[in-house]
Amino acid sequence: MYSEKVMEHFNNPRNVGEIKDADAVGEVGNPVCGDIIKLYLKIKDDTIEDIKFKTFGCGAAVATSSMVTELVKGKKIDEALKVSKETVAEALDGLPSNKMHCSNLAADALHKAIKSYNKKD
Amino acid sequence: MYSEKVMEHFNNPRNVGEIKDADAVGEVGNPVCGDIIKLYLKIKDDTIEDIKFKTFGCGAAVATSSMVTELVKGKKIDEALKVSKETVAEALDGLPSNKMHCSNLAADALHKAIKSYNKKD
Ligand code: FES
Repeated sequence: MYSEKVMEHFNNPRNVGEIKDADAVGEVGNPVCGDIIKLYLKIKDDTIEDIKFKTFGCGAAVATSSMVTELVKGKKIDEALKVSKETVAEALDGLPSNKMHCSNLAADALHKAIKSYNKKD
Repeated sequence: MYSEKVMEHFNNPRNVGEIKDADAVGEVGNPVCGDIIKLYLKIKDDTIEDIKFKTFGCGAAVATSSMVTELVKGKKIDEALKVSKETVAEALDGLPSNKMHCSNLAADALHKAIKSYNKKD
């Protein structure tokens, strides 16, 4: 059901945790199961210097969050905004369709965080 | 939303993994989100000598599975059968009602595993 890459990120998730003095935070809830993903970004000179995530969600939520943090760490925020649900799913060699609700959360949280950061300027 | 005990078991789950030569296996699926919990039991002289779980499910599924393994490890199987969803929820100082679908999986998987073992005799 899950690709090797999904299982690898699930069993060994990257960048789990909180950033206490985060410059931007994005939180998104899964309407199906009620689970939440929270992304914390540390931004300097429009670059994502650090990013961490927290979720009580399922394996698909964990694996996609982990992948999102890897994809955008060190990137300019306008580059990071180009990372979509599709980018994440591709980077993970696909995701089961019945887990789409869970898999979209991470990219949504990323976009939400960056938008709230841009508004602050 | 979650008790300290739930968070503690979620962040530091006990007995995660598989038992290759398990004497009994119980698998249960979550009708809401499609996730699965699998429990592996090693039984000797009607005693649960070892127990491990695997799940791709959410934090509530992880925490309740972890608690179930702790509650029944070393117990006689007829004692273990007395461990219900309510026992598990109590041991975790309560569970959110919107997570009941996820939280009941572990006790269900335990009962399923023991019943399949008893049938083999
Ligand atoms: S089932 Fe809740 S995030 Fe996937």
